[in-house]
Amino acid sequence: MTEPAPLNRFTVEPLARMTRRLADVAAGRAEPDLVVTGARLLSTYSERILENREIRIAGGRIAAVLPAGCYRGSAPVYDAGGGLIAPGLVDPHLHIESSMVTACAYAEAALINGTTTIVCDSHEIGNVLDAKGVEWMLEDARAAPLNIYLTVPSTVPATTPAIETAGGDLTPDKIAALFDAWPEAIALGEKMDFVAVAAGEERAHAIIAVALERGRPVSGHIYGRDFVAAYAASGVTDTHEAIDRDIADDLLEAGLWIFLRGGPPTTPWHSLPAAIGTITEYGAAWKRICACTDDRDADDLLAYGLDWVVREAAARGIPQAAAWAMGSLHPATRYGLDGEIGGLGGGRRADLVLLDDDLVPQATWYGGELVVEGRKATPRLEAALATPYRYPAAAYATVRLPDPLPALVPPLPPGPCTVNAIRTTLPGIELIHERVALTPATDWPETLAAHDLCHVAVVERHGLGGGVAHGLLSAFGLKRGAVASSVGHDSHNVIVAGLTEADMRVALDAIAAAQGGVCVVEAGQVVAMVPLPIAGLLSDQRVGVVAEAMRGLKAAWAEAGCAIPYMGFNLIPLSVIPQIRITDKGLVLVPEMCPVPLFEAA
Amino acid sequence: MTEPAPLNRFTVEPLARMTRRLADVAAGRAEPDLVVTGARLLSTYSERILENREIRIAGGRIAAVLPAGCYRGSAPVYDAGGGLIAPGLVDPHLHIESSMVTACAYAEAALINGTTTIVCDSHEIGNVLDAKGVEWMLEDARAAPLNIYLTVPSTVPATTPAIETAGGDLTPDKIAALFDAWPEAIALGEKMDFVAVAAGEERAHAIIAVALERGRPVSGHIYGRDFVAAYAASGVTDTHEAIDRDIADDLLEAGLWIFLRGGPPTTPWHSLPAAIGTITEYGAAWKRICACTDDRDADDLLAYGLDWVVREAAARGIPQAAAWAMGSLHPATRYGLDGEIGGLGGGRRADLVLLDDDLVPQATWYGGELVVEGRKATPRLEAALATPYRYPAAAYATVRLPDPLPALVPPLPPGPCTVNAIRTTLPGIELIHERVALTPATDWPETLAAHDLCHVAVVERHGLGGGVAHGLLSAFGLKRGAVASSVGHDSHNVIVAGLTEADMRVALDAIAAAQGGVCVVEAGQVVAMVPLPIAGLLSDQRVGVVAEAMRGLKAAWAEAGCAIPYMGFNLIPLSVIPQIRITDKGLVLVPEMCPVPLFEAA
Repeated sequence: MTEPAPLNRFTVEPLARMTRRLADVAAGRAEPDLVVTGARLLSTYSERILENREIRIAGGRIAAVLPAGCYRGSAPVYDAGGGLIAPGLVDPHLHIESSMVTACAYAEAALINGTTTIVCDSHEIGNVLDAKGVEWMLEDARAAPLNIYLTVPSTVPATTPAIETAGGDLTPDKIAALFDAWPEAIALGEKMDFVAVAAGEERAHAIIAVALERGRPVSGHIYGRDFVAAYAASGVTDTHEAIDRDIADDLLEAGLWIFLRGGPPTTPWHSLPAAIGTITEYGAAWKRICACTDDRDADDLLAYGLDWVVREAAARGIPQAAAWAMGSLHPATRYGLDGEIGGLGGGRRADLVLLDDDLVPQATWYGGELVVEGRKATPRLEAALATPYRYPAAAYATVRLPDPLPALVPPLPPGPCTVNAIRTTLPGIELIHERVALTPATDWPETLAAHDLCHVAVVERHGLGGGVAHGLLSAFGLKRGAVASSVGHDSHNVIVAGLTEADMRVALDAIAAAQGGVCVVEAGQVVAMVPLPIAGLLSDQRVGVVAEAMRGLKAAWAEAGCAIPYMGFNLIPLSVIPQIRITDKGLVLVPEMCPVPLFEAA
Repeated sequence: MTEPAPLNRFTVEPLARMTRRLADVAAGRAEPDLVVTGARLLSTYSERILENREIRIAGGRIAAVLPAGCYRGSAPVYDAGGGLIAPGLVDPHLHIESSMVTACAYAEAALINGTTTIVCDSHEIGNVLDAKGVEWMLEDARAAPLNIYLTVPSTVPATTPAIETAGGDLTPDKIAALFDAWPEAIALGEKMDFVAVAAGEERAHAIIAVALERGRPVSGHIYGRDFVAAYAASGVTDTHEAIDRDIADDLLEAGLWIFLRGGPPTTPWHSLPAAIGTITEYGAAWKRICACTDDRDADDLLAYGLDWVVREAAARGIPQAAAWAMGSLHPATRYGLDGEIGGLGGGRRADLVLLDDDLVPQATWYGGELVVEGRKATPRLEAALATPYRYPAAAYATVRLPDPLPALVPPLPPGPCTVNAIRTTLPGIELIHERVALTPATDWPETLAAHDLCHVAVVERHGLGGGVAHGLLSAFGLKRGAVASSVGHDSHNVIVAGLTEADMRVALDAIAAAQGGVCVVEAGQVVAMVPLPIAGLLSDQRVGVVAEAMRGLKAAWAEAGCAIPYMGFNLIPLSVIPQIRITDKGLVLVPEMCPVPLFEAA
């Protein structure tokens, strides 16, 4: 058996080496490799639907678009049957790690949804494995049957070593080295420390300068209209965090490209419906407005792809061709890639999608090859997915817990005291600082039950000599056992919550044994688990396998009574969101950034 | 007396070095240098007019746009009196040489018209002085009080050494060296040999590859809908030559940015009114449509600037803010400069224009400095214009005629014969191949008069050992004397037309003495002349002086009876436009590209 031909971004040669062949095919002096005919064409350039076209493809690129039926040669012809042909979608901002799969695995779901290019920010793996983790993921990306560009993680760690122990520290020098070594590093990733940026802090601006000096744009992440002017003045030129029409409008006028984020409607991430008001209510032009996904659970990848986000925009009154342009040409233009992708112009990659009249993808061509048909991978794509990139052994050995493991729960206080508790509340992003007057009963279980509390601990896992911090969750709703995760944003220490230390240890042991994962434990048994052996963040399975495991986990999670979803649970250590968080170094109040003890005198 | 502070593109520091200061000013922690208040703001981002704004400027950049009246500090405040403030215009395609002035001199007219950035293609000086001429003009551009970027001349010479003798030969290697040495070389210049490109010729594609390999886009120049597909497939992504709505529409769909060219309505260059039909009649979105000037006589610079082109678009139904965006943000976006110019976002250069309600510029700030007020240069700009770049001596010594000079007119044929004559006709671009049955009289004057002919000669002037070619113009209308020009496109040999060899010699001597120029001779005397001593193409005077000289020349030109304007006359040697042209090597038929003799047996 011969090896299947590789299928990745490099399968199609650079345009510089193909112009003569493409000119020959366009002028009829040479045969194309494929003709897609009988199509209506969705033009992202003019925002119109063009009737009766055919596309001549050679070497994985578009040689010419001509009236349907012109072609009389011997190349294979695909009849689109009057369907809409559109350029593949371009997702301008997402984190592959959120989907807990590799880049190679992510590609499958993306292609099914008509997304042929993504711009990812791999700051999760950067927080665990520093620059080398980012580089391994870039190798993964290069092997994937998808165009994957990088925005270089800009804010690793999210805070400082005084607040938490992270596995990564992306200094300006390391960021510069990433830009210089990887041409697909097309921008600086979301500069999440927007308060520091607006305050003019030195390291934040030194990192921005690294990008600007190289002519690379800076992506943003910002809340709060008061910060807009100083943030924009700092050189940031996009954001995906516009949560309503007013801040979207402010940011647009401050010169930022707006990425409207669509998230599953049950999550707090679906900001598109409110933010799109800058267009639909305030009358702004949409030429600098894009669509993006940002984060997706593996099991949401298929139902809520970028195609769905585009349809959400169309459902709110954006004409279909313009809505599709927001998910293709506009992001391509934002990153200076519109000569390569985002439209069906001559010389562009033949990354095409066949759509029905509701903009639902029916087939996808990647670099001129049919990779999806009837919402399933074709044999060509199956072959490519069968030989994914393998991460090195070091990526599989990142959960290094303190040895011996300290106690996961604190001693029961000897008498009445005040607890600085973390009250969880839907949707699970902000955490309430609740001061609970604690009257200890005879043991922890009785005490917890009396106050609607449960234990939470964050365990340092980078082998950096950190320890275990203890906390108490209020109103978390856990009925029994324990839950735990090695995806504890952004430093990705292990977070475990439970009613008994024994079950918490079982959860922690399971995660250590798998070198990462999310699990639910009941009566000393792991009842659901998604193993995440790569960096403690990613599965090495196909996306369908991970999605199925995730559905099982979510069911067990709900069954256990947890009041916030696992994604919110993973955010409990994220010490940049108000009001109180817990890291491996203890409890911290945000935005004051000051530590507080778990127990205080009553 | 101290030297005035320089005023050029580098007076404003790169954003990478200014973000902290700008954030400080935006957040109110530091004072701005200037506040422009009481303005309505023309937003090129959202295509709206925003009421009551003020702009805080620091270090020549925009720190913040806030509601008018917010500012309470001690910085100078300029009250816009309710006028419109818009970003400075960005001209995406023009040739400075067409205006016969230096880059430093061009800046004055541009700024008066609210243009603060231009992208020039210096292929005229490249045809005379090869790469070093392009580099001298780049030094000139760097000294000018204007942002000047370059599209590297791509088609020098326009044809081949077999057809004509040029002073420049920009090979792929030389073009690569220009890209690598000059960061302001942001694209490849108009690839004028579109027939060769579409035919897949090697050198044309090698030059395109040089740009694409460096991630630089390729600008175009194309006529004829049949060539569109192969031209686009060759990697070209803009054009300024869409002459009607149909080809404009084709090119837009083929993925090219469209630069609508406005030219004085009396010229054949005013293609905007027809081409804009792609929007106004065919319904295309305008986000990838720009405005440009391309070529301007010095005396047309003020009345027909890019501001006028934008108003022409507005007059045809494009909303004002969108029309202004076509002349600012859209070109900036096309070249990946929208983080620096084209809009009033944070961190951008403070290149601003105060407009009246008809979009007529009233004042201009360049890098935060007031340079034009009441349509006149301010003292700050006057000081900058007083110390322009000086071209080196070699640039002043480019008219090197054959020595001794051969005869400028051919011997009178001994008997009846057929002349391959060049019939001039308005507007002066295409030249008709007219076969005239000649019956010689006793001498040339009598013979010419009998057949409505006059002499024309092209004299090689690069000192490359070329000679003189003889031709005959039909219906040129010259009543007396001679006219001559050292601007004989594209090789810029000297072209001279006249009724007597004596007057033709006077004209040629005047041009040789001045080392370049355009002149009109009558009865042995030069009656009008614009000296062009730099490369035989450019004056070294201020733009007002050149404009005045040009008006005098045009009056004498008309007085002499010439049937086509001097710009058309300059095109007579341009051997890429049908039907017959004359170069220093003789007569050539186009597009056959085959030489023909002046006289043939009857």
